Amino acid sequence: MKCVILMSGGLDSTTLLHWVIKKGYMPFVLSFNYGQRHKKELKFAQNTCKKLKVNHKILDLENIQSLLLGSALTSEDVEVPESHYSHASQKKTVVPNRNAIMINIAIGYAISNRINKIFYAAHYNDRAIYPDCRWEYIQSQNTTSNLANDEHIEIIAPFVEKTKEEIVRLGAELGVSFENTWSCYKGGNQSCGVCGTCRERIEAFQLSKIKDPLKYSIAVEW
Amino acid sequence: MKCVILMSGGLDSTTLLHWVIKKGYMPFVLSFNYGQRHKKELKFAQNTCKKLKVNHKILDLENIQSLLLGSALTSEDVEVPESHYSHASQKKTVVPNRNAIMINIAIGYAISNRINKIFYAAHYNDRAIYPDCRWEYIQSQNTTSNLANDEHIEIIAPFVEKTKEEIVRLGAELGVSFENTWSCYKGGNQSCGVCGTCRERIEAFQLSKIKDPLKYSIAVEW
Repeated sequence: MKCVILMSGGLDSTTLLHWVIKKGYMPFVLSFNYGQRHKKELKFAQNTCKKLKVNHKILDLENIQSLLLGSALTSEDVEVPESHYSHASQKKTVVPNRNAIMINIAIGYAISNRINKIFYAAHYNDRAIYPDCRWEYIQSQNTTSNLANDEHIEIIAPFVEKTKEEIVRLGAELGVSFENTWSCYKGGNQSCGVCGTCRERIEAFQLSKIKDPLKYSIAVEW
Repeated sequence: MKCVILMSGGLDSTTLLHWVIKKGYMPFVLSFNYGQRHKKELKFAQNTCKKLKVNHKILDLENIQSLLLGSALTSEDVEVPESHYSHASQKKTVVPNRNAIMINIAIGYAISNRINKIFYAAHYNDRAIYPDCRWEYIQSQNTTSNLANDEHIEIIAPFVEKTKEEIVRLGAELGVSFENTWSCYKGGNQSCGVCGTCRERIEAFQLSKIKDPLKYSIAVEW
């Protein structure tokens, strides 16, 4: 049973990859270089896929940077905000319509390979800031995708009601190598510990009472 | 009043560009190289945009060819079918989820430029074969796009109920230089006259009693 899965190389999509494998799927993993500041996440995705011996493609969409403007993730002119993941200032990290673009490419890829299931690691904490991670969007995207194609398509987001804390716990159960995942939006040598996604990740590990093996530029109490 | 408009360089999107200009819009034109066999259409789009002095971007998505397989438009292994535009064998010219991918990129581009209207030249004859040209899809895509983004988005397909014949008539009224449009899927030196889109174009000109200035490899009675 084949499926396509979107993978950034972060904690959520890496855990989801382990989850779909456990469920018996043969995953076709798809990652994107869209000019993100933290494109080192792709190396982490690649390492995990090699280790798990699964089919992995990275689509180079770097050109798209010239069209999708104004986000701290893709523009050197916009600073990465150092607030909580759910704080309104994190809106600066939204790349316009990014996930919808990726999902739509994944749909084309799935149809090309006669696959009808696409997995996507949107989770509950995403919903405050990122509308394209909410179940309302995913549900509507499913309807739209089935109208846009003759083939039946199913976009599945099993973590959409799970918090990051629950994903950390699930990842630990599934044997995810957390040191092989990357979250920090700044994409430096070490995780900064203060950007929205670092804060969210640290909080999730603290709440689940598991130590994050990643090194941070700030001191963290586990 | 700005808008984004998707333009292939074909007759329909070139007519639509003239139409939006007449309506008073300042168009941001977007074209795609997705590895199409008839990528010479992009040169026609470029010429028209230069002539009309409008902003034009061509996004190079040629890499996507490695993901979107099995279509006569992007794969040398699949022959371009020589049947009527509405014949079932034309399904071979479908590129999986292509228009939805383009529209979603256009949405990101529009939001980046604080534009909320995206024009798209789907027309009535497309609906037999291409589900992503039907109003059911466009309507649903509108709902989905507004759920995926905080910004209000409107995808508008003014030709969705118009036949190609009506578009030819409208193009003539609007002063479209039909010789600066390209339709033929084969993308050779001259239009082949026998692929689905050539047949549809010839028929539309014949029905509207206008002579198509393009040269065809077959003899055509006008």
